[in-house]
Amino acid sequence: MKPDLSLIKVIGFDADDTLWVNEPFFRDSEEKFCDMLEPYCPRHDIMKHLLTVEIRNLNLYGYGVKAFVLSMIETAIDLSGGTIPNKMIKRIMEMGKEQLEMPVELLEDVRSTLSVLKNDYRLVMVTKGDLLDQERKLKKSSLSSYFHHIEIVSEKREEEYLKIIKHLDIQPHEFMMVGNSLKSDVIPALEIGAFAVHVPFHTTWIHEQVDITLTHEKFYEMDKLSELIPVLAVGEKVS
Amino acid sequence: MKPDLSLIKVIGFDADDTLWVNEPFFRDSEEKFCDMLEPYCPRHDIMKHLLTVEIRNLNLYGYGVKAFVLSMIETAIDLSGGTIPNKMIKRIMEMGKEQLEMPVELLEDVRSTLSVLKNDYRLVMVTKGDLLDQERKLKKSSLSSYFHHIEIVSEKREEEYLKIIKHLDIQPHEFMMVGNSLKSDVIPALEIGAFAVHVPFHTTWIHEQVDITLTHEKFYEMDKLSELIPVLAVGEKVS
Repeated sequence: MKPDLSLIKVIGFDADDTLWVNEPFFRDSEEKFCDMLEPYCPRHDIMKHLLTVEIRNLNLYGYGVKAFVLSMIETAIDLSGGTIPNKMIKRIMEMGKEQLEMPVELLEDVRSTLSVLKNDYRLVMVTKGDLLDQERKLKKSSLSSYFHHIEIVSEKREEEYLKIIKHLDIQPHEFMMVGNSLKSDVIPALEIGAFAVHVPFHTTWIHEQVDITLTHEKFYEMDKLSELIPVLAVGEKVS
Repeated sequence: MKPDLSLIKVIGFDADDTLWVNEPFFRDSEEKFCDMLEPYCPRHDIMKHLLTVEIRNLNLYGYGVKAFVLSMIETAIDLSGGTIPNKMIKRIMEMGKEQLEMPVELLEDVRSTLSVLKNDYRLVMVTKGDLLDQERKLKKSSLSSYFHHIEIVSEKREEEYLKIIKHLDIQPHEFMMVGNSLKSDVIPALEIGAFAVHVPFHTTWIHEQVDITLTHEKFYEMDKLSELIPVLAVGEKVS
């Protein structure tokens, strides 16, 4: 029997790179960081070391801009053998502040799709970013009115999705998760028995990349968010 | 008519310095930070400058250890006129990591009180700290089983409490907030019509201090958490 899309009550949306542009700002900061450190170290090694430091700090710092800035400072001190000038450290911190203050650039069809879906579903934002930062982006994006609330999680694994389901007081088959990361938004959602939609974004952080082709009866792959509308209409929602 | 305590369904607990020790770790780090910077600047001015930087960054960084570390680095660069050695910046970052890895020290009567209250109320943790850090502390404290979930907020003002109430699907008079901060835990909770309990802690961050004497029919002041039990028993809960 085909899974019944008409049972879906809540749709969870990842935020960064699903609703709005995010990853390219990190990539830009990394490029500037490499420019800064090139006198000390070849470009490729800077990137490699930064990634190592970021992943090592993930358990302690989590995700988001502040964690990124702290890891850049740590990398800069390491790679310069403890001789990086204060003004460069200051510049790294400014890059972080600039990232936090960046205007929000919505992805294609986001607003129009949410405005349709909100009539039939409870929409929640599910993110592992920093709450303050995500709230700021939500406000700047003027998408607040479409979302019931924000679910902040420290990781996006099965256990966190189960908690969200419990918290929303629904069953897994009543939930659909939409996002740009197979690893964080799609696979764990499918594993708990929910529906999952992958809307790839052109840039993905290496740590989020997985190299698989996915086939699953509750899985949908889309180029843009608006493709959700015909898919969900297939199973006409009974209210 | 006296407010009816028997209507309370959910009790919200602040975490840091209400359930476990937190602020003294920040004070310790500040002392070490002052020791480090004393060659550049008188102690009193270091503290003053750090507080100014922290408050200036609050909008952008929010609360928590990462924000604190970034503000310490910024202060160190400022006060040293851009000459602070890399090893001191590294030391500041290590202080942050040590704080994040600190063992959790529960305050008096916390476990025994929660274990009684959880039978009659839904208990939630309401905190403006960093989610990852608070989850880690909750796990280390072995208090997880007492709490239904964690409500992470970027600030604790009336609007956030109203959101929590909505989220919990209850009315303000069915909610009681317990915490060590008059400014964040007590006043905004009373203002939305909820009950509020103040359990003062010996150390409060200057930015959280308010100099008032509070009288309100829904307000309770206690020396320790266990005093909640007789207070709530007054209005025998009807289930």
